[in-house]
Amino acid sequence: MGLLQEIDKTDLADVGRDLHAFAAELYPICRSITGAGIRETLTRIQARISLTISEIPTGTQVFDWTVPREWNIRDAYVKNSRGERVIDFQRSNLHVISYSVPVNKTLSLAQLKEHLHTLPDRPDLIPYRTSYYKETWGFCLSQRELDALPEDQYEVVIDSSLEDGFLSYGECIVPGESSEEVLISCHSCHPSLCNDNLSGLAVATFLAQILASRVNRFTYRFVFIPGTIGSLTWLSRNENVVPNIKHGLVLACVGDPGAPSYKKSRRGNAEIDRAALHVLANANAPYNVRDFSPYGYDERQYCSPGFNLPVGCLNRTQHGKFPQYHTSADNLDFVTPKALADTLRLCLQVFHVLENNYTYLNLSPKGEPQLGKRGLYRSIGGHPDAEAREMAMLWVLNLSDGQHSLLDIAQRSGLKFETILNAATDLQHHKLLVRASQEKHS
Amino acid sequence: MGLLQEIDKTDLADVGRDLHAFAAELYPICRSITGAGIRETLTRIQARISLTISEIPTGTQVFDWTVPREWNIRDAYVKNSRGERVIDFQRSNLHVISYSVPVNKTLSLAQLKEHLHTLPDRPDLIPYRTSYYKETWGFCLSQRELDALPEDQYEVVIDSSLEDGFLSYGECIVPGESSEEVLISCHSCHPSLCNDNLSGLAVATFLAQILASRVNRFTYRFVFIPGTIGSLTWLSRNENVVPNIKHGLVLACVGDPGAPSYKKSRRGNAEIDRAALHVLANANAPYNVRDFSPYGYDERQYCSPGFNLPVGCLNRTQHGKFPQYHTSADNLDFVTPKALADTLRLCLQVFHVLENNYTYLNLSPKGEPQLGKRGLYRSIGGHPDAEAREMAMLWVLNLSDGQHSLLDIAQRSGLKFETILNAATDLQHHKLLVRASQEKHS
Amino acid sequence: MGLLQEIDKTDLADVGRDLHAFAAELYPICRSITGAGIRETLTRIQARISLTISEIPTGTQVFDWTVPREWNIRDAYVKNSRGERVIDFQRSNLHVISYSVPVNKTLSLAQLKEHLHTLPDRPDLIPYRTSYYKETWGFCLSQRELDALPEDQYEVVIDSSLEDGFLSYGECIVPGESSEEVLISCHSCHPSLCNDNLSGLAVATFLAQILASRVNRFTYRFVFIPGTIGSLTWLSRNENVVPNIKHGLVLACVGDPGAPSYKKSRRGNAEIDRAALHVLANANAPYNVRDFSPYGYDERQYCSPGFNLPVGCLNRTQHGKFPQYHTSADNLDFVTPKALADTLRLCLQVFHVLENNYTYLNLSPKGEPQLGKRGLYRSIGGHPDAEAREMAMLWVLNLSDGQHSLLDIAQRSGLKFETILNAATDLQHHKLLVRASQEKHS
Repeated sequence: MGLLQEIDKTDLADVGRDLHAFAAELYPICRSITGAGIRETLTRIQARISLTISEIPTGTQVFDWTVPREWNIRDAYVKNSRGERVIDFQRSNLHVISYSVPVNKTLSLAQLKEHLHTLPDRPDLIPYRTSYYKETWGFCLSQRELDALPEDQYEVVIDSSLEDGFLSYGECIVPGESSEEVLISCHSCHPSLCNDNLSGLAVATFLAQILASRVNRFTYRFVFIPGTIGSLTWLSRNENVVPNIKHGLVLACVGDPGAPSYKKSRRGNAEIDRAALHVLANANAPYNVRDFSPYGYDERQYCSPGFNLPVGCLNRTQHGKFPQYHTSADNLDFVTPKALADTLRLCLQVFHVLENNYTYLNLSPKGEPQLGKRGLYRSIGGHPDAEAREMAMLWVLNLSDGQHSLLDIAQRSGLKFETILNAATDLQHHKLLVRASQEKHS
Repeated sequence: MGLLQEIDKTDLADVGRDLHAFAAELYPICRSITGAGIRETLTRIQARISLTISEIPTGTQVFDWTVPREWNIRDAYVKNSRGERVIDFQRSNLHVISYSVPVNKTLSLAQLKEHLHTLPDRPDLIPYRTSYYKETWGFCLSQRELDALPEDQYEVVIDSSLEDGFLSYGECIVPGESSEEVLISCHSCHPSLCNDNLSGLAVATFLAQILASRVNRFTYRFVFIPGTIGSLTWLSRNENVVPNIKHGLVLACVGDPGAPSYKKSRRGNAEIDRAALHVLANANAPYNVRDFSPYGYDERQYCSPGFNLPVGCLNRTQHGKFPQYHTSADNLDFVTPKALADTLRLCLQVFHVLENNYTYLNLSPKGEPQLGKRGLYRSIGGHPDAEAREMAMLWVLNLSDGQHSLLDIAQRSGLKFETILNAATDLQHHKLLVRASQEKHS
Repeated sequence: MGLLQEIDKTDLADVGRDLHAFAAELYPICRSITGAGIRETLTRIQARISLTISEIPTGTQVFDWTVPREWNIRDAYVKNSRGERVIDFQRSNLHVISYSVPVNKTLSLAQLKEHLHTLPDRPDLIPYRTSYYKETWGFCLSQRELDALPEDQYEVVIDSSLEDGFLSYGECIVPGESSEEVLISCHSCHPSLCNDNLSGLAVATFLAQILASRVNRFTYRFVFIPGTIGSLTWLSRNENVVPNIKHGLVLACVGDPGAPSYKKSRRGNAEIDRAALHVLANANAPYNVRDFSPYGYDERQYCSPGFNLPVGCLNRTQHGKFPQYHTSADNLDFVTPKALADTLRLCLQVFHVLENNYTYLNLSPKGEPQLGKRGLYRSIGGHPDAEAREMAMLWVLNLSDGQHSLLDIAQRSGLKFETILNAATDLQHHKLLVRASQEKHS
């Protein structure tokens, strides 16, 4: 059974609930680019798919970077003179700047304020802040909480550690008929932020599950990595794999109710770009497309000039363009089961195009073959579906000269990939079409 | 005298009347893809131009197809119980489905109705139906005629034959200075349908007449063929000719009063495509252009991937887009002398571009040559025609580097081909320009 | 100090006044394509910049042309029977058709009128007329002056000479680090017409002055030549120089208050075209761009097919599109200090792009280098300038694969060339970028 048929029989409402439930399971964990939180997250993913977890020691050189020390945190708070926790890591892990060094001090309000971060224009939200590569410490809180703090002597405790350890990432390989790979990458380093990027983790995990149950043309490689340093580490350890990567997709912020948005690879017209655009353009729903820019998620690394991989990025609302971005409002309410399921479905549709985008040769290239004698042509006209099917057959025959893939044909004809694929399948059955030995992915 | 001058001196009203009269002469004949009707049609064309008629036996293999049995029909009718012909082939040859097998039966109205075809949404018109490759029989009639048939026992007779015989096609070659060919193809298989395609037959015949009276650069090959099986047959018997075909045009539905419409070849930017577009764009009248699609007339065969010939298709209103299409309303009233003459003129203008679209070399390529000393440049300014002529000379000199044809220059300059050609002619006379030995048709 | 910084510190109002004053100094001189006027003009330029003046003898063959005889004029007038000068060369050198042969006659009004030229639709203006290559004589005057002439016997004197002599042109070479050249050409043959082309002479002279005070990458070659015959003469004597010309600009009509206008080179996408368009598009002011056409100024010769040099043309209002064109209204009032200074600044900005448009190699091409550890990345966000600077660094790193020049990167990123250049400079200082040995100017 084809991948698309599998999608179509799936109850997307059920899948959406399951995706959201998995995000909810991961939500409380305090993740960072290293440490127990990301390790725990990978373990939960490993419970669902076959995941290899790699542990890369602190100090390992990865290209121009060095794997940092491992950060762990047990507790953190600010207590007033009455012993009340006025800022409490236990209530939200966003309250502590990620990678804060250990602290145990008593400070005046003025001294404390130098380490407090708020969003004055969104006074109810806690911001998300990190300081991976510069040693510091700090707390994040809402502007209203800050405004309510009186003059006092505050006990400030961050019970964290920043020590030699490991950077952890997970990798799930779903082997296919070919050693050519599709890379799916999602950053797994953020704490309790749901769209950014538990949405990506959940969708990727479910995609791996679905693909593992099927026979696929491509080998699918899912990487669950801390942002930037994780993709750099993965790339530096897998330079031999890079030439096998034929298509790639970064999944980030894919659970909010906004329209899906695709950011093209650096190449701009790679097969993944064209497949994604074709799927989005034929989904009868709003969508956005952006050109590549060297800012965003880990596509920055995959598309660096030394690799220039055909890796695009799928989002719903673009990062930084939703007010919940990098705040406590990016929570389980912001991400919807429907949006998660829709993203999953879009990914499967894109993979369906990639899996089937072969180039064929018309075996009867001089004139049209006689479709009627093979029962491929209606003897009497009028049925619109039949017309589209016949047009698709004529287009496939006309352009199957070894220079046009099925996606090329879909684009030139204005017909859906599925219609073109079905026509090619019918023509193959009737020995009118054969797969070109040297496939061309234009 | 140039072809364009010849067009301009022609009285188009006279030509239009003659074209229409020839269509009227052919109108009553019952044509099909084989048989006496198409043979008679070819004979009438042969009375006007030097036509070679080929007869290809039933059963001949042509690529994936087989030449069918020959169909002939003498009479056909449905008589009511009072002996009145309620459907009568003698009144319109559209009443019988083309390639109907012989019938001689008495049927109830209900039994008869299974073999009757109407157009319920256009109740006064008789539809045109064929069944070349599936043995059946049937009658076509207007919905009003059908509604008027009472319960009765009907005598149903089709006095036809479907026997081994021949497929007939005609070919007129007008030799030119070069063995490079321009192919003009029109389908000749439809019965009493005037726009589709007596219009094409008439225009092609007159074009052949005009070209035969001149010295031409190209060899012009006119083929009058049954649709699909005819072009396939011609191609299969002329594979050696195919490499000589540099440009081609299918003429179909070229007599209705709609705006002219050009469908590009599969290549999309062949010289014939660019020449046709230039002529249409400079005709100061509405026109349409369509991209290639593998549905339509015999360009489907010429543009199949095994040939990929630079063959476009000229129509007026596109087939299927006029309500008279494939009905009894596609009659002598629907086709106008003015439209036929306009199509003829457009074709001659396109041929004029092709004939003259050489690439030149500027013999004084360093700086501009001094036009003034040769009398090619006005000493005093102001005359708009003179300005266009001088601009054309400057453009021709500037772009005649062996890389640009005159049509390229016309397109880049925004000037008419004729203006550019005249400038090139003047410059040639003054030894400032010479034809590039290796012509480039970009 | 960079060229752009130099522009920015310049007081443009001062420069504008100086440019206008230089135009005013040259305004009274009666120039033509040969003779004392152009020689005097070149001498005045020579007082400001290092100018080599060439004198090419009458009769010298230059490609398809011949250097004409030298024309000089001392006086010319039409006197009425009362001895009053009703037309007087001393009042305006436009009154005499350039290259008029000597005359000394007495004529009736009717006879005289055959040699008088006016602009009936602009009755107050004296037209500018020439007859270089056809021997004749004539006077130009306003329609009102003509209308006021009564029947009379007129003494007509043109005290001119047309004798073997020389064609004079000036050349100023500002040597650069490279033997690759930027050509700046302006026609210097027109009499008292200020925009056409004292504006060009003044701007070119000042550009040469500014560039001579700096160390430049390119060698800049300024040519001050009579139109058409001058550029042809220069080209014919400098064919060995032509291969060194990498970029070129014709300056003509660059002092009127209209928006700047750039006419592309014949190549259409040469680096000079792209640099000029980038500067104009980022100047926050209206501008126009035109495609190449073989009509205009000396770019016609530079862009002839035998040379096809990448030479564009900078104007403000296009020649022939302002009503003052080729009339006595093209005077010192029509040209403004502000427009002259703005043109000068635009030219320097274009040269700044050309000078700095190198192609680089990212030395850390696998993934992004860690900008933070080098202090190139803000640890805390928010400053819009810093954001543009960081985006520029990411773009430069991403596209510096040896295939993209800085101008390519500016165009793809939508950032200003200056921002991209600054980023490249910073990255070079940090050894993250190195100039590609084989520069590519795409």
